[in-house]
Amino acid sequence: MRIARFSIDGNVAFGAVEGEGPDGLVLDIIKGIPYAEFELSGTKVPLSKVRLLPPVLPNKVVAIGRNYAEHAKELGNEVPDVPVAFFKPTTSVIGSGDAIEYPSFSNELHHEAELAVVIGRMCREVPRERVKDVIFGYTCANDVTARDAQKREKQWARAKGFDTSCPLGPWVETDLDPHDLTIQATVNGEQRQLGRTSDMIRSIEDLVVHITEAMTLLPGDVILTGTPAGVGPLHVGDEVAVTIEGIGTLTNKVIKRG
Amino acid sequence: MRIARFSIDGNVAFGAVEGEGPDGLVLDIIKGIPYAEFELSGTKVPLSKVRLLPPVLPNKVVAIGRNYAEHAKELGNEVPDVPVAFFKPTTSVIGSGDAIEYPSFSNELHHEAELAVVIGRMCREVPRERVKDVIFGYTCANDVTARDAQKREKQWARAKGFDTSCPLGPWVETDLDPHDLTIQATVNGEQRQLGRTSDMIRSIEDLVVHITEAMTLLPGDVILTGTPAGVGPLHVGDEVAVTIEGIGTLTNKVIKRG
Repeated sequence: MRIARFSIDGNVAFGAVEGEGPDGLVLDIIKGIPYAEFELSGTKVPLSKVRLLPPVLPNKVVAIGRNYAEHAKELGNEVPDVPVAFFKPTTSVIGSGDAIEYPSFSNELHHEAELAVVIGRMCREVPRERVKDVIFGYTCANDVTARDAQKREKQWARAKGFDTSCPLGPWVETDLDPHDLTIQATVNGEQRQLGRTSDMIRSIEDLVVHITEAMTLLPGDVILTGTPAGVGPLHVGDEVAVTIEGIGTLTNKVIKRG
Repeated sequence: MRIARFSIDGNVAFGAVEGEGPDGLVLDIIKGIPYAEFELSGTKVPLSKVRLLPPVLPNKVVAIGRNYAEHAKELGNEVPDVPVAFFKPTTSVIGSGDAIEYPSFSNELHHEAELAVVIGRMCREVPRERVKDVIFGYTCANDVTARDAQKREKQWARAKGFDTSCPLGPWVETDLDPHDLTIQATVNGEQRQLGRTSDMIRSIEDLVVHITEAMTLLPGDVILTGTPAGVGPLHVGDEVAVTIEGIGTLTNKVIKRG
């Protein structure tokens, strides 16, 4: 099932995405919240009439750097012995269709297309064989990065944590085998990144074990699983799209920070 | 005013701390929330009858590394050109009296006594002269660190973000000049860290400007301002106390992770 979060006439709701094609999609409004038992209301609104919101409101976003060998190489980095884990704050999260605001402290903004794992239940010290039980679904992410600040600043709170640096969406797909999917990024329709999730150095199972060895994950928390090769610049006016096979497309325009 | 957050008989409330001495302190329960206009109810409970909670529920904790020259030196680090900013997640926050759980992936846990700045209003791109207007108050923090993991892992999400790694408390002092205060840490009553906030490399004003250049801060968000020299090991069974002049003492026991 694909679950979107959206606003319509000032109200916020979750809905199941149904139908086909850009104009045929409708949202069946969910009664309750999708992390627990829920029912579909049968009340449907066309997707074109709503504003999509970030499909989850995470308590935290844990992101993984250098998880595809070709990407580590393109930036001149070694493949790390231990996963490189960092946080993106909730204030960085935006949805599909929202604007990425070019930060004032950077002149080198980059896109990074990533598969995002959405956690469904509170968990800690998850054994490898139980990882599938704590996952709610998957969505597309863009780990937007101020590359120049990332080089200057030893820890990446500003470089990868500025407002609007974490587009997520368009919705969460709950029925998906994530292990061998095409992941791509385009800028203004031109392909920039292309990879397969099967090329991850650490699997989703590895990452959940590694992260939850240290910290509790809560329903709605998000893990970004790293970006394949092909990262590159974004400029004001660009439209960047992240597409993952079986999920959909996350699209954001880059604007001047107002 | 000193504002504590606490639970009593299963209810959670904020209260103004009044009175003197370890046994004479009472909490005047606050009607409403302390970030907006609020009234004291006049209903008072002895501090000894409540369980203190973290005095704030931050949306994010932004911490600064290597902000005291003597501390940078003791770990063999240069004083950085740009502040080293990283996040601690909300799942790491505990209050005074709560236990620090020794993480399973570390054999070298360290205390780091820090002055914590509590933000009072939503803000971004705060000019230096307006910094005082966005600050709600100050509390004590312990930036508990798995030093071995910090050395192994390039970004510090696990080393400084594991559950219970962010003790805050005992309360927020709203009337305080933070610029030249004694800050100390003891372990089992023995002094380990001693410094003055006047020795910070970057001032509180610098840090708020630097952070809000990139990201929005929300009411209750916390900035940890770095630790003075004298960091050292914590072991299971230790009691670590962070005392800051004009605020009070944050005390936590170290236990085996259950």
